[in-house]
Amino acid sequence: MGERGIPPAVISRLPRYYRFLGELIDRKVERISSRELSLQMHLTASQIRQDLNHFGGFGQQGYGYNAKYLHTEIGKILGLDRSYKVIVVGAGRLGKALADYVLYEKRGYMIVAMFDKDPAVIGQKSGRGIAAQDVASLARYLEENEVDIAALTLPSEGALEVMPILLEGGIRGIWNFSHTVFPNSGSVAVQNVHLSESLMELTYRMNHLSI
Amino acid sequence: MGERGIPPAVISRLPRYYRFLGELIDRKVERISSRELSLQMHLTASQIRQDLNHFGGFGQQGYGYNAKYLHTEIGKILGLDRSYKVIVVGAGRLGKALADYVLYEKRGYMIVAMFDKDPAVIGQKSGRGIAAQDVASLARYLEENEVDIAALTLPSEGALEVMPILLEGGIRGIWNFSHTVFPNSGSVAVQNVHLSESLMELTYRMNHLSI
Repeated sequence: MGERGIPPAVISRLPRYYRFLGELIDRKVERISSRELSLQMHLTASQIRQDLNHFGGFGQQGYGYNAKYLHTEIGKILGLDRSYKVIVVGAGRLGKALADYVLYEKRGYMIVAMFDKDPAVIGQKSGRGIAAQDVASLARYLEENEVDIAALTLPSEGALEVMPILLEGGIRGIWNFSHTVFPNSGSVAVQNVHLSESLMELTYRMNHLSI
Repeated sequence: MGERGIPPAVISRLPRYYRFLGELIDRKVERISSRELSLQMHLTASQIRQDLNHFGGFGQQGYGYNAKYLHTEIGKILGLDRSYKVIVVGAGRLGKALADYVLYEKRGYMIVAMFDKDPAVIGQKSGRGIAAQDVASLARYLEENEVDIAALTLPSEGALEVMPILLEGGIRGIWNFSHTVFPNSGSVAVQNVHLSESLMELTYRMNHLSI
C-alpha cells in the first residue's frame, strides 16, 4: 500500500492513464466517459472510477472526465510536473540504448551522464552523443552535480558496488535493470525492471495458454 | 488467476527463484532452507512455502530445498526446458540492444531475425550481427520459418499493423515494448514491458518516499 492506502496496482496503472489521456489531447478529444476510457484501458468502468477515486475522483456524473484536466492532475500525482536528471551506470548496449530511449521519450527526463568501468567502453558515445565516463569519477560527479535518478544497466556485482556511491551522492531514484533486487528503502525509491525475467514469464504464459 | 488458481504475483516471482537457485548452483550450494531463501528473495519464509506449494511443495521438512531439483522443476514450470525462436520487430536502438541482450542471456532464446520498415535501417546489423530485414517480407518469413516469440520494439501504429501478420504467422508469444497494450488472448500470450511507464512509476515513488 502506498500513500493514503493506494494499492500498488493502481499506481502501476497511472502511467497508462497518463499516456492514453495525452493521446486523446493530441486528437483534440476534450471529454471521455469512464466507459470509453475503460474500453481503451482494458479495465471495467467501475475499476476506472475506483482507481481515480483514490485521488479524489476528477469526474462529474453524466459528464465524463475532462481529458486535459485529468491528464494534468495524473501528471502531478506522478511527479511529471517537474524534470529529472538521470545518469546511466553501465554503458553497454542496453545502457546506451536506454540513454537514447529516455532522450527520445522527452518527458522531463534528462540524461546528463553515463558511466562505465571498462576502459574499452569509456569515451564511447550513445547514438545521441552521450559519452561514457569512468565510473571512478562517479562520486565526484555526484558531489558536483545534482542528479535525481540512476539507471543501472550493469551486472549484479557492479550494481552492488555502485549502490553506496549513489546513495552517498544523493540519488533518490534507482531504475534498476541489473539482476540484483534492491528493495525500496526510506531514502531511495527503486523500480526494478527485469527484462530476462519478463521473457521467462512470457514463456510460462505461452505454455499455459489454455488458462 | 492462472493454472490451478496460481496468482499472477506468484508466477511473476518464479523467474526470480529460478535465477537465484541458478546462482546457488554456480556457488555449489546443494540445499537451502526457506528462511535463507526468504532473506535473499526479500519475502517471508511463509510466502516462499506458499508460493512453492502452488506447484506441489518441493521441500522436505527440516531439510530445506534441494537447489538443483527446485531449479530444474521451476525451469520446467517456466517452460525453460526447451528453446524458443525469437524475432525482433523494430530495429531501432532498443530493438538492436534487445536482440543482443537476449543473445547474451543465452537461456534457450534464439534471436533468428530482425525486421524494420525504414529503408535506412534495413540491412543494418545489431552488435552481434543480426541484420534487419524488410518488414514487408515478414509474412513470408513466418510461413517458411517456425518462430515462437516476437519482440515488438516499434511505435504503437506499427505494432497494430504488424500484429495480424504475427498471429497469422503462428507466433505464440508477444514480448511487447510498444505503447499499445495487447491483452492476452486465447492463442497468444502477451508480456507487456513498458519502459517509460516504469520510469514514471519510479518518479511517483520518489515523490512519495515517506510512505
